[in-house]
Amino acid sequence: MKLVFSKSDLNKAVGIVMKAVPTRTTMNILECILIDATTNVIKFTGNDMELGIETIVEGEIIEKGKVAIDAKLFSEIVRKLPDSEITITTDANYTSLITCEKSKFNIAGKSGDDFSYLPIIEKDKMITISQFNLREVINQTIFSTAPNDNNKMMTGELFEVSDNVLKVVGLDGHRIAIRNFNLEGRADDVKVVVPGKTLQEISKILSTDAENMVNVYFTNNHILFEFDNTTVVSRLIEGEYFKINQMLSSDYGTKVVINKKEFIDSIDRANLLIKEGEKKPIIINITDGSLEVNVNSAIGTLNEDIDIEKEGKDLMIGFNPKFLLDALRVIDDETVDIYLVNPKAPCFIRDKEQSYIYLILPVNFTA
Amino acid sequence: MKLVFSKSDLNKAVGIVMKAVPTRTTMNILECILIDATTNVIKFTGNDMELGIETIVEGEIIEKGKVAIDAKLFSEIVRKLPDSEITITTDANYTSLITCEKSKFNIAGKSGDDFSYLPIIEKDKMITISQFNLREVINQTIFSTAPNDNNKMMTGELFEVSDNVLKVVGLDGHRIAIRNFNLEGRADDVKVVVPGKTLQEISKILSTDAENMVNVYFTNNHILFEFDNTTVVSRLIEGEYFKINQMLSSDYGTKVVINKKEFIDSIDRANLLIKEGEKKPIIINITDGSLEVNVNSAIGTLNEDIDIEKEGKDLMIGFNPKFLLDALRVIDDETVDIYLVNPKAPCFIRDKEQSYIYLILPVNFTA
Repeated sequence: MKLVFSKSDLNKAVGIVMKAVPTRTTMNILECILIDATTNVIKFTGNDMELGIETIVEGEIIEKGKVAIDAKLFSEIVRKLPDSEITITTDANYTSLITCEKSKFNIAGKSGDDFSYLPIIEKDKMITISQFNLREVINQTIFSTAPNDNNKMMTGELFEVSDNVLKVVGLDGHRIAIRNFNLEGRADDVKVVVPGKTLQEISKILSTDAENMVNVYFTNNHILFEFDNTTVVSRLIEGEYFKINQMLSSDYGTKVVINKKEFIDSIDRANLLIKEGEKKPIIINITDGSLEVNVNSAIGTLNEDIDIEKEGKDLMIGFNPKFLLDALRVIDDETVDIYLVNPKAPCFIRDKEQSYIYLILPVNFTA
Repeated sequence: MKLVFSKSDLNKAVGIVMKAVPTRTTMNILECILIDATTNVIKFTGNDMELGIETIVEGEIIEKGKVAIDAKLFSEIVRKLPDSEITITTDANYTSLITCEKSKFNIAGKSGDDFSYLPIIEKDKMITISQFNLREVINQTIFSTAPNDNNKMMTGELFEVSDNVLKVVGLDGHRIAIRNFNLEGRADDVKVVVPGKTLQEISKILSTDAENMVNVYFTNNHILFEFDNTTVVSRLIEGEYFKINQMLSSDYGTKVVINKKEFIDSIDRANLLIKEGEKKPIIINITDGSLEVNVNSAIGTLNEDIDIEKEGKDLMIGFNPKFLLDALRVIDDETVDIYLVNPKAPCFIRDKEQSYIYLILPVNFTA
């Protein structure tokens, strides 16, 4: 095999497929990138068996062939080479010679035959969304998923499409994040649970440009993303997602309209008095025209108040400050509406159109 | 005590004295900043007993007094407060109320009486140098000192002044870094060893502006830096420094003139094939007009060559790549001169005026 690339094309392609390469694994071949130039295009693949990414790379095929190369080493070499033409030549033992100007790297490769290609996905149900918007809805909800596997379903996100609205939901038992997004163009109805890790990795390679679209295809077991020269396939999480409609309610006894930045800054300061791992809540005291933030910890006390618009009854309620911060930080609005019932019931941060709904459970506190 | 500051003045002053506050200590009081407003100025002090920093802060004294406050917590609070007027009020129990706009922090303080002030230093011998240049000579040599205490003297740097030239030297048993700097104005002859930690911390608070000067005073046991509103005092390392003149030699059998950036980039790539902790050298093969960089490791091989001007005999020699990189990266020149004798003798990177000399010991290799 002998291929010629520009450094920038090569660097970009390696960066994309690297997102599917596991950092630690017992199967050595998975730590590789497959370079496949057996046809008339050059295709790079990374695959950790749950998530697979394939991208077509600009380059010249001087001699056809394929090889699997250690992904981390290869990406570091490409990154450090001069900004010039890079040639990759492989011999019968898969030893790969990477040359660029006066640099000649020789590293071991593996037979590409042991590498798992992406599964073939039936392109039946689909939606189209801009790369920018897909990235936004992921980033605006993913923090609410559970980081570990105790409850597999909580590590994923619900992707539900009906009547041309995409609903994305993440929850971890303490909070729920929901985004509703109106789709233009074709949008088949679906309801699947996508692994959080898949979404995190794909959000890193989606373009920030609102013009570039991504086609998303769904089967019973897989989700497939197609954009630019890249294809991402992931397994889905099997089983039925939580019945979240039962958890949502539009009743409230207190409504607060607050400046988002002032609220974030205040919670941020309150956080200074709470040690990592300490489950100390911040206490929020809502009265006419004022929301008071209070902490009383071993480190010290903080009291501050923020001007608000308020409807309904006074209320004192405790929260894990991190949960409030996570939700507030991904809301674009200058002011947010918070709906509360009582100190034991969840609070809701949501806009009038319900394009976002953040449910946060309160924490017991001793006043 | 009651004091009023602007956030930016307070933030800057806390940032400066924090550099002398130890992160872990058995003496609680050392983790504090002393705020002393018993006279007509407000003075902040941080002191880890080896290094002490004192700075005078702009602010209004409404009621005189002093208090010691946990440095880390205080600095975080100040940083997160709004960009507005900050008031600090202390009661008889040293409880400190920090208010800013609608924020009211209450944190515990300690009696300032237990805090150690900086020692009084006799301002006898001195030099004057710009803050920028002092920072430069520190950063250009400090990496050559030993990080741990096995040999106390190696953790410090020699500061030697004679005939208006400041010589700064760091060495760790494998290499020596020397900078010679011509001083203008008064410069008394001295020869002291300054702890590396002191130099590292002071380099972080020196201004980057070439116009601002620093006065440096020396006694037998202490060094004192005076600049802007700040005073830094550090103990010296006692004992006699290494006789470095015996280690320097101007004899050479091979001289190489090389483009610095090309050499750095090449060593950087060679480094990719050397695992952390592995003592694999890079092998440099010098022939007429060409310097070849070679690595042959378990990961792979690299070969590249760089055009050079060469004088004297051909030579093959091995080096720890990190030592070459450290020295080359702090040299401002576009091309550097390297002087070599044989594969067992140190190499020297130095300019004609000897404003810098970097000595690096070679490493054995099997060709």
